[in-house]
Amino acid sequence: MVDGALRACQADPALQLLLVGPVEASDAILHALDPADRARVRVLTAPAGLRRPGTPEPDVNRVESGVRTAVLAVAQGHADAVVSAGNTGATVSSAALALGRWSGVRRPALAAVLPTAAGRIVLLDVGASVDPDGNTLAMHARLGAAYAAVAHDLAAPRIGLLTIGTERGKGDRLRRSAPGVLAALDLPAGARYTGLVEGNDVVTGAKADVVVTDGFTGNVLLKGLETAYALTRPPNPGEVPPRAAILLGVGGTVVVCHGAASGDDIAAGIALAAGLHRRAAVPAIADLIQPQPAAQDDLRGGS
Amino acid sequence: MVDGALRACQADPALQLLLVGPVEASDAILHALDPADRARVRVLTAPAGLRRPGTPEPDVNRVESGVRTAVLAVAQGHADAVVSAGNTGATVSSAALALGRWSGVRRPALAAVLPTAAGRIVLLDVGASVDPDGNTLAMHARLGAAYAAVAHDLAAPRIGLLTIGTERGKGDRLRRSAPGVLAALDLPAGARYTGLVEGNDVVTGAKADVVVTDGFTGNVLLKGLETAYALTRPPNPGEVPPRAAILLGVGGTVVVCHGAASGDDIAAGIALAAGLHRRAAVPAIADLIQPQPAAQDDLRGGS
Repeated sequence: MVDGALRACQADPALQLLLVGPVEASDAILHALDPADRARVRVLTAPAGLRRPGTPEPDVNRVESGVRTAVLAVAQGHADAVVSAGNTGATVSSAALALGRWSGVRRPALAAVLPTAAGRIVLLDVGASVDPDGNTLAMHARLGAAYAAVAHDLAAPRIGLLTIGTERGKGDRLRRSAPGVLAALDLPAGARYTGLVEGNDVVTGAKADVVVTDGFTGNVLLKGLETAYALTRPPNPGEVPPRAAILLGVGGTVVVCHGAASGDDIAAGIALAAGLHRRAAVPAIADLIQPQPAAQDDLRGGS
Repeated sequence: MVDGALRACQADPALQLLLVGPVEASDAILHALDPADRARVRVLTAPAGLRRPGTPEPDVNRVESGVRTAVLAVAQGHADAVVSAGNTGATVSSAALALGRWSGVRRPALAAVLPTAAGRIVLLDVGASVDPDGNTLAMHARLGAAYAAVAHDLAAPRIGLLTIGTERGKGDRLRRSAPGVLAALDLPAGARYTGLVEGNDVVTGAKADVVVTDGFTGNVLLKGLETAYALTRPPNPGEVPPRAAILLGVGGTVVVCHGAASGDDIAAGIALAAGLHRRAAVPAIADLIQPQPAAQDDLRGGS
């Protein structure tokens, strides 16, 4: 985390960091920074939670406490976005509680971006919602479509449903019932549902720009492919997206890094969060997903 | 298929092929073979099923009919093993019906072998059983352990359960209940359950030799990783296992190739089936899984 925060500060001279966590970590960052840069870094010490001195394992309660403190800092306007490599479940539930969920979103989605032979692909959910029903998959299809349109400037993104064969009757219970729900869906940003895709299509990118799946399958596939690309090479070395996921469906910019993220991954996660905030991506996605209040439409001159 | 069958014949001078399918395909193979080799190839024309002339799509009924005919040829002793790139569901159900399931095996498992940074890993199930319960995962753990011991000569294989995080409470409903069942399991061949693994561990091979999961997740991960390795390179180029899966739990040697298998893949699948038959792997795996009848033990001199 320290290494990643330093890299992010050095790479982005306009970045301001609010560090949330133990004093030792923030001290290490402040010492390593040029004196001129120290003014860009503030520190918020997280409540310590239960300590387990003498054990090498991370202290889950302490990490979760840090996540809650960081999300509250965004909710209270002390920060514009949160980047967490803490417990995913704690991050998702803290964010939903402190920042609120968008209207119609019961289960927020974690969306990851993977390199493909054709460019890049949005894969969601990758761990926020492990036993979803068809309606959750449908909302995640809408969230993924809006994210691809806003963050990747994609016109009419192609949305695919991940399954294990395109013949009729293939797939598990959820996948046998979901295609009908997705096909009937009103997708934002001109997106269209292009049908069933398989694991290979997440690597080639040939059939879809956004791939929808449950958080269990998505997380397994994401960790498998990211590790495969790290050990070999990405299918498209010109365009390697950050190894970080964005939480969609909550009222703020929340980026989740792996628990085992490297300094590079943390820096890329911070850069992703900063970039999304600067282009006001999350409000733009929310506008595509949620029905607009009439007054807001009027202010826009009816466009 | 024609290309793969030819390659298999050329690579293995002792191989005898029984081709099951349309006459045009077998004619193409017979014409391409040296006259001396033609005696090694016999042809069994599959009942044609419903034809759909003029459409470029494969005729599912015709393919399934071919699978049934091929499996029956093994059941009736006309062939020692079957290799199919037809519909997986039809292959599994035809094989279970015609060859019988082993005692205690309600759901046979499709096991694939993937290259890892550490060597190779057995992943199962990869598509035979998409909504398994904990007992099915437990039987698949036993089948995978026996396969790794017999086919890979592994002493005391390490068995892992695929999930999305090793902290308590992670995973979906199935994965939250299954670890207890697996930990209490009597595994064959000195295998031991080593706990939860994640998608990255299927690439590194660091934590387990056999990874157990449901057929939906396993199929998605298999197709993703195989395509990633094909587009980039395998994590261990010295040892690339065949892109084919073996059906475990039925009374015969059944190898399943992708519907979109290349000639190389088909040839590798045929070589896998021939190798498993020659070392009597399937009966050896069955012996490890099923309780031995007393009379058979006596014949072995009590060893």
